[in-house]
Amino acid sequence: MSQAVKKPLTILQKSISKHVTIRLKNDVEYHGRMNNIDPYMNVILSDASEYSSGSVVANFGKIVIRGNNVLFIKIEDTI
Amino acid sequence: MSQAVKKPLTILQKSISKHVTIRLKNDVEYHGRMNNIDPYMNVILSDASEYSSGSVVANFGKIVIRGNNVLFIKIEDTI
Amino acid sequence: MSQAVKKPLTILQKSISKHVTIRLKNDVEYHGRMNNIDPYMNVILSDASEYSSGSVVANFGKIVIRGNNVLFIKIEDTI
Amino acid sequence: MSQAVKKPLTILQKSISKHVTIRLKNDVEYHGRMNNIDPYMNVILSDASEYSSGSVVANFGKIVIRGNNVLFIKIEDTI
Amino acid sequence: MSQAVKKPLTILQKSISKHVTIRLKNDVEYHGRMNNIDPYMNVILSDASEYSSGSVVANFGKIVIRGNNVLFIKIEDTI
Amino acid sequence: MSQAVKKPLTILQKSISKHVTIRLKNDVEYHGRMNNIDPYMNVILSDASEYSSGSVVANFGKIVIRGNNVLFIKIEDTI
Amino acid sequence: MSQAVKKPLTILQKSISKHVTIRLKNDVEYHGRMNNIDPYMNVILSDASEYSSGSVVANFGKIVIRGNNVLFIKIEDTI
Repeated sequence: MSQAVKKPLTILQKSISKHVTIRLKNDVEYHGRMNNIDPYMNVILSDASEYSSGSVVANFGKIVIRGNNVLFIKIEDTI
Repeated sequence: MSQAVKKPLTILQKSISKHVTIRLKNDVEYHGRMNNIDPYMNVILSDASEYSSGSVVANFGKIVIRGNNVLFIKIEDTI
Repeated sequence: MSQAVKKPLTILQKSISKHVTIRLKNDVEYHGRMNNIDPYMNVILSDASEYSSGSVVANFGKIVIRGNNVLFIKIEDTI
Repeated sequence: MSQAVKKPLTILQKSISKHVTIRLKNDVEYHGRMNNIDPYMNVILSDASEYSSGSVVANFGKIVIRGNNVLFIKIEDTI
Repeated sequence: MSQAVKKPLTILQKSISKHVTIRLKNDVEYHGRMNNIDPYMNVILSDASEYSSGSVVANFGKIVIRGNNVLFIKIEDTI
Repeated sequence: MSQAVKKPLTILQKSISKHVTIRLKNDVEYHGRMNNIDPYMNVILSDASEYSSGSVVANFGKIVIRGNNVLFIKIEDTI
Repeated sequence: MSQAVKKPLTILQKSISKHVTIRLKNDVEYHGRMNNIDPYMNVILSDASEYSSGSVVANFGKIVIRGNNVLFIKIEDTI
C-alpha cells in the first residue's frame, strides 16, 4: 500500500505468495502461487496449471521455471 | 522540458507514470501506464491491454514484462 | 518441511536425489533422479527416460543436461 | 571532418541529432532523428516512421529501441 | 565409486576418457571418446561419429564441439 | 607482410580501410570499405552495397553493423 | 605428441596452421587453413572453401569467422 515507486524486481519480490500467471516465450502459460522468485526471474510455482490457447492442459505440484523463458508475469490482485 | 541530451535509459526513467506502448519481439504489443522500469528494460505496466494485429485481445491488471523481450517502447506524449 | 521461504535455486539444491521431470525448450521431457544441479541449472539425471508427446522414446543411464536448455523442472513429491 | 579514425560506437555518438535508418533483425526499418544512443545501441528515435518492405506502415512520436534488436544503423548524410 | 555428491561439471571432468553421446540443440548426435571438456562444455571428441535420426551419417577423426550447442551429454558406462 | 601470427581481432584491426564482404546470420551480405571495427565486431562500412542471393539490392552511404549479427568477414586482398 | 590431457581451447591453439573443417550452426561448412583462433573461437581461415550439402559453393581468400556461430571444428590430421 506504500506510495513509493517500486522497481520491477522489487514488486515481484513483494508479490511472493500471490497468485500469478506467467506467460513464457513459447506462448504457454502457467497459473499458480508464486512461492518465490529471484532477480533472474527464476520462479517457484506451486499448484501450477499449464494453459495452452486458454485451456488447462496439465496440472503440476511444484515447478521451478527458468527465468530466461519468461515473457511476462501477471500479478493476480484478488483470488 | 530540459534542453539537455538524455540517454535512452534516462529518458525511460523520466517517462515513469506515462502511458506507453511496448512492442515485443513476438510482435505482440502492450499498452498501459509504465509504473516503473529498470536498466534491463524490465517494465511494470498497469491497466495493461494486449494488442495483436491492432486489436485488443486481453486486458490485464498489472504485469511485469521481462526486458529482454522488448523490441521498442513508444512513449505516448498526450493521453 | 521448513516454513522458511526458499529461493528457486535453493529449493532445487534441496531437491537433490528426488525424482524430477525436466522440460526443455524444444518441448522434450526427461524424467529421472536428480543426482545434482548447479546454479546455472546444469543437471545430472540418472535412470533418465526421454518423453516426447507423452510417450517414452528413449532410456538413458546417466545424462548431464546443459542448464540453458531448461524450460522448467517439476519436483515429484512422491515416488 | 576530422581525419582521425573513429570507432563504431564513437561515430554513432557523433551522429546524435542526425537522421538515421535503423534496420532490426526482424527486417523492419525505422527512420527518424536519433536523439541519443548508448553503447548497447539502445536508441531514442523521434519523428519515427516504421517501414516494412519499403512502405511506411506506422508513424510514431518518440520510441526507444532496445539495442540487441539492431541489425545496422545507416547514418543519413544529408536531409 | 565415491559416495560424495558431485556437481554436474565435476562429473563431466571425471568422465574424461569415457565414451559419451552428445546431443546438440539441432538434434544431431555425436558419439565418441571425450578427450577433454571445459566448464563451458566445450568438448574434444575423438573417433567421433555423427548420428542423425539414429543412423551414422559421418565419421570424424577429432572434433571440438562448442559448448553452447550442447543439449545433453550421456555418459556411457560400459563400452 | 609480418611473419608473426596474428589473432583474429588483430587481423581485423589491421584490415581497417580495406574492402571487405560481411555476411550476416540472415545470409545477407554487405560489401564496402571497413572504416573501423571494434572487438565486438561492430563495423563501420562506407560505400556499402547490400547483396542478397548474389545481387545488389541496395546501396548505402555509411552504415554501422552491430557485431553480434556477423557470420564472417572476408578481407578482400586486392581492389 | 605429448601425453598430457589438453583442454579444448588449448588443443585448438595447438592446431594453428593445420587444416580444419568448421561447421556453423546454419549447417554450412568452411574448409581451410586455420591461421589463428582465440578463446571465443573467432577463427582466421585462409584458402577457405564454403561447402553446402557437401558441395563447394564458394572459394574465399581469407575470412574471419565469428566464434559464436561455430558448431564444431574438425581438425584434419593429414593433408
